[in-house]
Amino acid sequence: MSGSLVIVGLGPGSSDLLTPAAARALKAATDLVGYGPYLDRIPAASVNQRRHASGNRVEIERAGHALKLAAEGNKVAVVSGGDPGVFAMAAAVFEAIEAGDPAWRELDIRIEPGITAMLAAAAEVGAPLGADFCAISLSDNLKSWQTIERRLRAAAEGDFVIALYNPASRARPHQLGRAFDLLREAKSPESIVLFVRSAATPEARVVTTVLAEADAALADMRTLVIIGAAATRLISRGARRPWVYTPRAEQEVVR
Amino acid sequence: MSGSLVIVGLGPGSSDLLTPAAARALKAATDLVGYGPYLDRIPAASVNQRRHASGNRVEIERAGHALKLAAEGNKVAVVSGGDPGVFAMAAAVFEAIEAGDPAWRELDIRIEPGITAMLAAAAEVGAPLGADFCAISLSDNLKSWQTIERRLRAAAEGDFVIALYNPASRARPHQLGRAFDLLREAKSPESIVLFVRSAATPEARVVTTVLAEADAALADMRTLVIIGAAATRLISRGARRPWVYTPRAEQEVVR
Repeated sequence: MSGSLVIVGLGPGSSDLLTPAAARALKAATDLVGYGPYLDRIPAASVNQRRHASGNRVEIERAGHALKLAAEGNKVAVVSGGDPGVFAMAAAVFEAIEAGDPAWRELDIRIEPGITAMLAAAAEVGAPLGADFCAISLSDNLKSWQTIERRLRAAAEGDFVIALYNPASRARPHQLGRAFDLLREAKSPESIVLFVRSAATPEARVVTTVLAEADAALADMRTLVIIGAAATRLISRGARRPWVYTPRAEQEVVR
Repeated sequence: MSGSLVIVGLGPGSSDLLTPAAARALKAATDLVGYGPYLDRIPAASVNQRRHASGNRVEIERAGHALKLAAEGNKVAVVSGGDPGVFAMAAAVFEAIEAGDPAWRELDIRIEPGITAMLAAAAEVGAPLGADFCAISLSDNLKSWQTIERRLRAAAEGDFVIALYNPASRARPHQLGRAFDLLREAKSPESIVLFVRSAATPEARVVTTVLAEADAALADMRTLVIIGAAATRLISRGARRPWVYTPRAEQEVVR
């Protein structure tokens, strides 16, 4: 087959954080496929480039449509926020390949990585992911809340820094509060909690607090929540927002 | 103070994966500070730009040197492989700030994120990080092996996909083998294991195997090791290397 499909990570939003490889892949495509607001970020490459916008939450249909276009001989770019491999479009494309036309397995498929939200959020505040960490999506559209709880407990047990993707949406307003409740049972009330909204954009907003006081209402779908490990700490800077970082070494326990 | 310090993520190596923001920060610096081989990747911006190369494993000294240069009024860029916030230079800089001259807290400090190794490695093979995952550094230079074991156990308990950074070095040849032994007790022997060496470079090399057969000798300092969750799976493609991905939904258990 002569068609190809590349799954492109747009990063957090600004073209400043789009890799040259990703920009080139977008330019070379005959067809751009993606969630409407992501497509709107991409400058037109030529009058012949087609755009196929779809709504949120239809990832598998979108992936199947993109694969069909590629199988017809087109050069397709599937656009994804952040990094395609982290709670984004790449897994949906491979799900569609596995369930779909066997000929799709012969397609030329590539992934162009991007800056995922937790890296941009961490860069806003210091180096909170400086030691071992985990990333958990709080969305239970595709997995049970029981699995999410099991992973939160394990993350606390391992004293990982925790990055929470998809912490809240209009359809799921209560999950982050339940996650905080669970973590309050397993972690110190003084654990640092960061709400980083719209990281790496001019609208970036950071709230730094502790687990005992963390208010789930501060999060929406544009927010990444980071919960520190035992060693995660603040560097105060007078009137300015403190830096937050996790030292590479273990916390020295004062006895 | 008029000086500034930016911690710049170079990504996996190729300039194709260096963000425009990072490239601009490198160009604007009067002083580049970093591990020699990383500095060698950066084209000269001007004859006046100074380069301060240091060896590996002297992160805190390097960070202190960079902060001193910034405090003297220079525009300093500290270069870091991958993303500065993930097992790289950002945490070292904040450790140096906390322990160092209080005036350093007044400096203008920024972080430019980059593509970290696990994103590049995942893009080589499909979407192995497609569900909840964790990142663990196997280096015990700065933390105890006991802590590493605790985190590996927790990662298995939570059924996270596991990305292992720094899996092996000449000074630590046996740790990855010990990690595999521990994970064999806690996870299915059929768990998928990926060795991805020099991801996102022309020398990229991938070995796909299962936990029961994973040979730690396949890893060196340029390798990122990914150990799948229960749901992580292969898509076979005849003679070509299979795709590996973790579906967004939980594995359907066939009883």
